Amino acid sequence: VNTPALASVRRFAWVAEARPEKIDRYLGLHAAPWPSVNAMIKACNIRNYSIYVRRIGGVPHLFSYLEYVGADFAADMARMAADPDTQRWWAECMPCLVAQPGLTAPGVWADAEEIYHLP
Amino acid sequence: VNTPALASVRRFAWVAEARPEKIDRYLGLHAAPWPSVNAMIKACNIRNYSIYVRRIGGVPHLFSYLEYVGADFAADMARMAADPDTQRWWAECMPCLVAQPGLTAPGVWADAEEIYHLP
Repeated sequence: VNTPALASVRRFAWVAEARPEKIDRYLGLHAAPWPSVNAMIKACNIRNYSIYVRRIGGVPHLFSYLEYVGADFAADMARMAADPDTQRWWAECMPCLVAQPGLTAPGVWADAEEIYHLP
Repeated sequence: VNTPALASVRRFAWVAEARPEKIDRYLGLHAAPWPSVNAMIKACNIRNYSIYVRRIGGVPHLFSYLEYVGADFAADMARMAADPDTQRWWAECMPCLVAQPGLTAPGVWADAEEIYHLP
């Protein structure tokens, strides 16, 4: 059932740990995301991007799911990272999360591995 | 950009905790899912269904994302639960996961709360 367009979709899922005392701040930011940041995300070929929260062991964890429809993920991520508004947004969001060891910048989201997919 | 068809999509995300000694069994099952179970999932109006794994605190956790495109989620889930092949599949999968308190049957997947979505 893949059309040529759908065949180019790449799915990503990331997990983050929130600081319990800052989860409300993180939720508040995402209840009113900055339009310029959303626009940059879409310009960088991301769509159907969701973030979920669930407490695990009493600690709020975040799970994000997104679909990438461009041709050069690394280049689009670099473009996003160079955007001043996005940098300001990350400066608000990232202190709400716990840095994970061994990750590439920004270092708060860890890749989850896809083990099953049904179109 | 929502078309009438897309407007009826409901997204779900669920989190589960795997038994460390049984995660390989779970991964093996999902590397070769039963065609009849996949067909029932699709017949029950689920699409774009992915499962991810990531260790949190050293314990493998599963995160699933799916989109529901039908008109009666509860009825479709009841139909799926009544399918004998699906029951056999769940009998293989569910012992790999840790029962969560306070959940409805099958009691191993917990709802995660959507806090952000960008189409």
